[in-house]
Formats: sequence, C-alpha cells, structure tokens
Amino acid sequence: MNAVANSSAFLPKHTVDAFHRGRFYLVQPAGRGHRAGMDAMMLAAAVPSNFSGRLVDFGAGAGAAGLAVLSRCGTASVMLVEKSAEMVAFAEATLSHPANAHLQGRATILCADVTLGGRARVAAGLADNAFDFAIMNPPFNPGADRATPDNLKRQAHVMPDGLFERWVRSAAAVVRPRGGLAVIARPEQIGALLDAFHGRFGNAELLAVHPRADRAAIRVVLRAVRGGRGKLSIRPPLMLHEAGSDRFSPQADAINNGLASLFGD
Amino acid sequence: MNAVANSSAFLPKHTVDAFHRGRFYLVQPAGRGHRAGMDAMMLAAAVPSNFSGRLVDFGAGAGAAGLAVLSRCGTASVMLVEKSAEMVAFAEATLSHPANAHLQGRATILCADVTLGGRARVAAGLADNAFDFAIMNPPFNPGADRATPDNLKRQAHVMPDGLFERWVRSAAAVVRPRGGLAVIARPEQIGALLDAFHGRFGNAELLAVHPRADRAAIRVVLRAVRGGRGKLSIRPPLMLHEAGSDRFSPQADAINNGLASLFGD
Repeated sequence: MNAVANSSAFLPKHTVDAFHRGRFYLVQPAGRGHRAGMDAMMLAAAVPSNFSGRLVDFGAGAGAAGLAVLSRCGTASVMLVEKSAEMVAFAEATLSHPANAHLQGRATILCADVTLGGRARVAAGLADNAFDFAIMNPPFNPGADRATPDNLKRQAHVMPDGLFERWVRSAAAVVRPRGGLAVIARPEQIGALLDAFHGRFGNAELLAVHPRADRAAIRVVLRAVRGGRGKLSIRPPLMLHEAGSDRFSPQADAINNGLASLFGD
Repeated sequence: MNAVANSSAFLPKHTVDAFHRGRFYLVQPAGRGHRAGMDAMMLAAAVPSNFSGRLVDFGAGAGAAGLAVLSRCGTASVMLVEKSAEMVAFAEATLSHPANAHLQGRATILCADVTLGGRARVAAGLADNAFDFAIMNPPFNPGADRATPDNLKRQAHVMPDGLFERWVRSAAAVVRPRGGLAVIARPEQIGALLDAFHGRFGNAELLAVHPRADRAAIRVVLRAVRGGRGKLSIRPPLMLHEAGSDRFSPQADAINNGLASLFGD
C-alpha cells in the first residue's frame, strides 16, 4: 500500500495506494475518512478463487474489497455500492486511475443506501436476485464506543442498532438463491449477524482472526449461502502474526496480497 | 479412563473408570447411555483453577465434570443435578466409591429437572442465587439428527427446541450476580446460546475446540458472567491433536488430566 504519484488533482487531499503488490491501486482520502487495509483484503479473500460471477460490494468505500476480488478472480465483475457521495468520488477516481485500466471493464459504481427496502431498493438500482455473491464490511463501532471527530470516518464506523439486520436483509434480496455472502465484523457482533442470517443464509462458516496465536480475536469473517439449510461451522482461525514477531504470518501475507483465499477454496 | 475392579455390584452393568490419571473415578453404565469423556473434562476446565466456591453441575450424569472441578479446585464444592433417576444412581455409586473418598465431603446430588421454572425450581431444591458458578453439558443432538436405539443415550443427547433457553434461564436464577457459567456445545448452537445469554450473562468468552489445526471445530465452550455487560470475545482455540499425529496435544492432554484450565486462569 505504497503511495504513488497523485493523478487525481480534482479530488480533496488524497493518496494513491498500491494493493496486491501493485496489481491494483486505491485513491482514498488522505489522513481522514475510512482508509482501506487488512479488513478489506480479508473480506475479499472470503470469495472463492474460482469465482467468476457478479459480485456486489455493500459499503464499498473507495472500492478496496471489490477490486481485490477482481484482482484475484480474473473473470468476476463487481458493482461497488456506496452511500457517501464523497466516497463515491474516490471510487470513481480509483476506477479511472490508469493503473487500474485492466479492471475498469469489470467494475461499476452505484451511489445508494444499502439499507433501503423493497421497491425503494430496486428503484435505487439494486434489483432482486441480480448478484451471485455479496461482500460487506458494515460500519463497525457501536455509537457509544468512541468519539470520532471526523464525519467521514464516523459514517464508515458507526453501527446503529439493527443495521446488520438491514444490511443482511438487502443482501438476501439482491443475491440469487444459492449465491454467497461474506461479512467482516467484530467478534461481539456474531450474535446479531447469526440472527440476521436466520431464514435467509445458511451453511454459515465462521473464521476468527487473531493478531497472534495467544491473543483474543479482533475480527470475524462469516460466509454463508442464500437459502442454505446447513449448520454453522467454525473454521480454523487466521493468525495475523507469527509467535514473537511483528511480521505477518505467511497465510496473512498471502491473503493481504491476493495470493490466497481465506477459506482455502 | 481405565476400568478398575467392580465395587458396585448392585447397579446395572457398569464400569469404573479412572479420570485425571486416577485422582478420581466414575461409575457409569457399560456400553450404553451417555459415557463421560473429553467433553466433561473440557467443560470442567472452564472453571478457573483458583475457584473455591459453590459449583452446580446441570445435567451431571454420573458426575464427571463436577468431580473434575473438585479434583482440580481443592476447596470447591459441587451440587450434581441430574434428572434421570438411573443416572443419579450411577452418580451416587460414584460418590460412594472408596477411590473418591477424598471428594465425598464436597459433593451432593440432587435428582431434579433443571428446566423447571420459578417456584417449581426452588421447590425442587434449586434456590435462587445459591451458587457461584454453573457448568452445563446440555443434550447435544437435535432430534432429526440421528436415530438412537438406546433410551438412556437419547435422554442425554437430544436437544428439543428452546432447551438452551430453559437451561440458561435456570442457570441465571441459581447463580449469584457476578457468578459464572460455562457451557459446552456444538458450533451450530452458538446462536441459540448467545440468544439465551442475552440480558442474563455477559462478558462472554468463546473457545472453539478443533480436532487439529486444519479442521473445523467440533465443540465450543462458552463462559460468561451473570449480569456482565462486557462484549463477547473469542479466545485462541484448543487443538486436540498435533499436526499429523493421533496423539493429544500437550494442552489437550493437560486439560484432560486436570492439570490446566481451558481459559488459562
């Protein structure tokens, strides 16, 4: 994620950061707003490597997770869905960046609120059963958890009550039967997510992400199948760092660089 | 868990099995009913090693988990609560076995249904706020999951809808505020357990048990605090076997033999 020369001078102060060892770049706000990183790469890695269908990225921001899927899955397409007009401008700058020319034909952007329901959601451009897989990185932090001075960052990180329910409900509408869903969230949000999956997504797989082998998990990735009836399973966890080291583990490094999937498929 | 000489000839066909490398023994049905093993040892290991209060074991069977706590926590006491009169007879035989003489003064047995509510539960001998910690190994298998020819085993392994709710509700009644609860269950039961904890037990800790590092979890242990308001955390998992080996890992061996706690406290 090294910054390169600024090619989008019309935007507010921003950086252009390399992902997947330079196989794609992200134009994103400099020093403010939600900046993409490991979370987006882990979420993208939940999509199987042989995926070749239509992906939708809910809450796409500047497009990190969606483009990471395109970068690894050479025939997939993605619709990036983002509510914030300012972040949509960064996503547009990302797609039009010359370094991403090889991905442009497979990505579209929709400025819409994924929590819309029914006809309003369809009218906003999110048709029923239109996608084969949805990925989402919903706003993490409960309102009481922190004081964020920065309004862009607040939009990306505050999770009002019931938001998982609304995000998952919309995913269940736009993903075709037997299509997939992957969510990255915090460990304490498992209960709300499983409740939201109930009756919509089954065959759920839970994967915990630990900073290292002796520490509590900092993230979970949940993957499930639309209309699946199978039981929740718990996959072996991902350890980000090796014991006694600040270096990424080989598995975390491969996931961060688009060289491996999270669930081994 | 080696069988030793039969000292309880009045019981149906049974075995006397060593646990914790012979530090206590269990009298249990031979070849039928629920036979205690690793599940009971892992559940017992969820109690902190310095625990010295009043423990209640819901669905105690012949007493394996409760006695395993007494064996490791030298000043704790336990009430074994079991619905099946036949299993209570095995628990009584276990407590009166000469090899367990060192534990007898700290254990009592109650034949009662832990799913009773309100006054009926109190009348059955389970007073409100009477315990510092509850452990439970509720009946695992959903009804549709298997055909069990054996009625004793069926009683121990069938989980009707809502049973977690009733077991956890009773635990919340009999455990004092700030007291503990530990449950061993299957991964697919996390959602129902977290729902049952809601508003009763917080500061929950989830620990997944994997057969080995590359396999899905086969059990989860959830531990929580009565009236706690803290968030769910996910602890590093327990791997039962070492890679490429059928031998227990050092951690699993220590837990199985009462030499370590599951949560490291």
